[in-house]
Amino acid sequence: MNRWDKTVVVVGGGFGGLRAVKALAKAHAKVLLIDQNNYHLFQPLLYQVATAGLEPEQIAKPIRSIFGRQGNFDFMMAKVEALDLSNRRISTTAGDLGYDYLILAVGASTWFPGIPGLAHHALPLKTLMDAISIRNHVLRCFERASSARDPQTQEALLTLAVAGAGPTGVEMAGALSELVRVVQRRDYPRMSSKAFKVMLLEAAGSVLPGFPQSLSQAALDILRRKGVEVRLGVSVQGFDGNILGLSSGEQVPCNTLIWAAGVKGQGLLQALGLQTSPNGRLIVEPTLQIPGHPEAYAIGDAAHFEIDGKTLPMMAPVAIQMGELAAANIMRQLEGERPLPFRYRDPGLLATIGKNAAVARIHGLELKGFPAWVVWLLVHLLAIVGFRNRLMVLINWAWDYLFYDREDRIIVDPRR
Amino acid sequence: MNRWDKTVVVVGGGFGGLRAVKALAKAHAKVLLIDQNNYHLFQPLLYQVATAGLEPEQIAKPIRSIFGRQGNFDFMMAKVEALDLSNRRISTTAGDLGYDYLILAVGASTWFPGIPGLAHHALPLKTLMDAISIRNHVLRCFERASSARDPQTQEALLTLAVAGAGPTGVEMAGALSELVRVVQRRDYPRMSSKAFKVMLLEAAGSVLPGFPQSLSQAALDILRRKGVEVRLGVSVQGFDGNILGLSSGEQVPCNTLIWAAGVKGQGLLQALGLQTSPNGRLIVEPTLQIPGHPEAYAIGDAAHFEIDGKTLPMMAPVAIQMGELAAANIMRQLEGERPLPFRYRDPGLLATIGKNAAVARIHGLELKGFPAWVVWLLVHLLAIVGFRNRLMVLINWAWDYLFYDREDRIIVDPRR
Repeated sequence: MNRWDKTVVVVGGGFGGLRAVKALAKAHAKVLLIDQNNYHLFQPLLYQVATAGLEPEQIAKPIRSIFGRQGNFDFMMAKVEALDLSNRRISTTAGDLGYDYLILAVGASTWFPGIPGLAHHALPLKTLMDAISIRNHVLRCFERASSARDPQTQEALLTLAVAGAGPTGVEMAGALSELVRVVQRRDYPRMSSKAFKVMLLEAAGSVLPGFPQSLSQAALDILRRKGVEVRLGVSVQGFDGNILGLSSGEQVPCNTLIWAAGVKGQGLLQALGLQTSPNGRLIVEPTLQIPGHPEAYAIGDAAHFEIDGKTLPMMAPVAIQMGELAAANIMRQLEGERPLPFRYRDPGLLATIGKNAAVARIHGLELKGFPAWVVWLLVHLLAIVGFRNRLMVLINWAWDYLFYDREDRIIVDPRR
Repeated sequence: MNRWDKTVVVVGGGFGGLRAVKALAKAHAKVLLIDQNNYHLFQPLLYQVATAGLEPEQIAKPIRSIFGRQGNFDFMMAKVEALDLSNRRISTTAGDLGYDYLILAVGASTWFPGIPGLAHHALPLKTLMDAISIRNHVLRCFERASSARDPQTQEALLTLAVAGAGPTGVEMAGALSELVRVVQRRDYPRMSSKAFKVMLLEAAGSVLPGFPQSLSQAALDILRRKGVEVRLGVSVQGFDGNILGLSSGEQVPCNTLIWAAGVKGQGLLQALGLQTSPNGRLIVEPTLQIPGHPEAYAIGDAAHFEIDGKTLPMMAPVAIQMGELAAANIMRQLEGERPLPFRYRDPGLLATIGKNAAVARIHGLELKGFPAWVVWLLVHLLAIVGFRNRLMVLINWAWDYLFYDREDRIIVDPRR
């Protein structure tokens, strides 16, 4: 049993955690991955599950099946409840344990600012259950609208608002506008297509803030062409599940608000008493070590990292590169060498807006519309974990592309 | 709006209800289908979802997409709460309505006899959520077992019992034994394959009671070859979630009991005050009409029907043929003609036992093992609703067949 003296614990099976575990395959140490789910979630496609384009199982891969052949790997399905960095102990729902080295890859969670009603009524999009809940909620609204008699009730049921026009919000609004079109034509031919409304709200003056201005403009044009009502410079003031209050003073009848306007570090990190960014992520050393704890690392969304005064974005490529370096640094430490600083290779920017359209910047090259969408498709197909999943996702997409269907539009509500 | 004077309401979108709606396409009446779910469930493959072989979306098809082009069709997603046959009124969670003709195709529900603890701790397999719950529960037991230290705790976590060796129980036990084998080898190589146990309990003296004796024997042999511990003449006396009490006096450490030992008619039917069978199904006229209510029909599992003193089994072919006749009889009544009596064309018997093996009787011909399994595969592929689903299911099966994987083994627990 004790082939290895040392134990590396990786908390979190997202992109960063997975890459770290993989890179540690040749480490002379036991590698234990802890996650509260038994699967890795391909988060960039979560909005597709929320809009009935993909099945939940197609973007989730059992973690044990990924590392089945890695001899030093073990997995524990548990929620981490507390960390004691000084004594190198972790408390989990499946018991306590110690470690020699630690990689914190716990990701981020949805941040609801203190707007009245928001935390209770708005729908987050961070977990697989969040996506299934959005799908259930939206489809159920359509069903209710089909038998609603009061016009304002029907308007509220058919108005879908997305707050936040970052990549997630833009993708979500684009996919919703396509879901609405298919659903109206196929399932509710007696309801007018004009009765359905998809709104995208952004407090800043453009969609995709942080993208080059020409790409933001292209994305805005595409969204509007797809029938999305984009409202710039407008923020949410309140939401009670029936009325959406906007900073413009409007009170919009609306039963669906999807919140894509902010994430924050996990509460677990804030409880450590260490220095965090304003949104609760750990400020790490250039080597990704946690200050004062050279055997502990934080990566991905859990880590706040600046290069030339600019914070690295919370996206998969950053997490993957950090996972690789944290693993390499631990292997250096195991050999008695010093950890190396993190260097980021920027892969570019990419956001899709429904079928056929995207915006991208790769190696300084800007792409818009269909060519960008082809790049997006290739990147995501190559990246999605597991061969069968890739095949199934491809078939689903090809089907959607040819027949423009949303076959997964079933309501499976477990909480009923 | 009022192209039709008359309204036919079909309650229940199972096999019988769907066929009735389809057959009513040319009726000079509005056809309203009511179901509490927005999808048709392909129930014969439910055990595949429960054992991580298929995805929930692959055996569920949105009802509106099935009848999108049927001009006289409408759908209402609602739960029927009460029926008033005398006044031809239906109370639903989405409001009350009247009808001119009615087809009750409400199916059956799991019957838990008054055995201590059973209703609370045993797992039914009737709905899509039941199947997802079994998948979650079983996979979570394996995860817990991998870190359990107490031998009896581990034994209970790895003992999976199925009560009832009808087709559902046999299929479930066969599929569980394959799930166990894959999971042990791929995910838990450090646990012994002998630690896992699948038990099939049957109070009668043979598996598949009601099948010809030679097929029952063949099924028993196949199950045992697949490592299922089959216990005949043994019934459940109690289950508290940890200990399974058997009529043999044994107290088996066991956390999982799947209940496939009985179904009963829906409570809705029993509330009508009409004559029902001992298991709560409506006794119908030879024409499938409900006695005393010539405009109302009951079909499928909701109807108790005898031919030559033998009760028709509760399976899809019966429901489908009844749906066809009920629709035809209503169309006859609309034209002023008399309804015809039901004649059953027996399609045979079929039960699968995991991969590669089944037993079947078709037109007097008995098949066992691989040939029966090929028949089973063809019948189910041809029957499953919707072309894309069929393609996806085929790919999933081909994948399983070639690589013997269970890629859908993710735990998505909504109630957490």
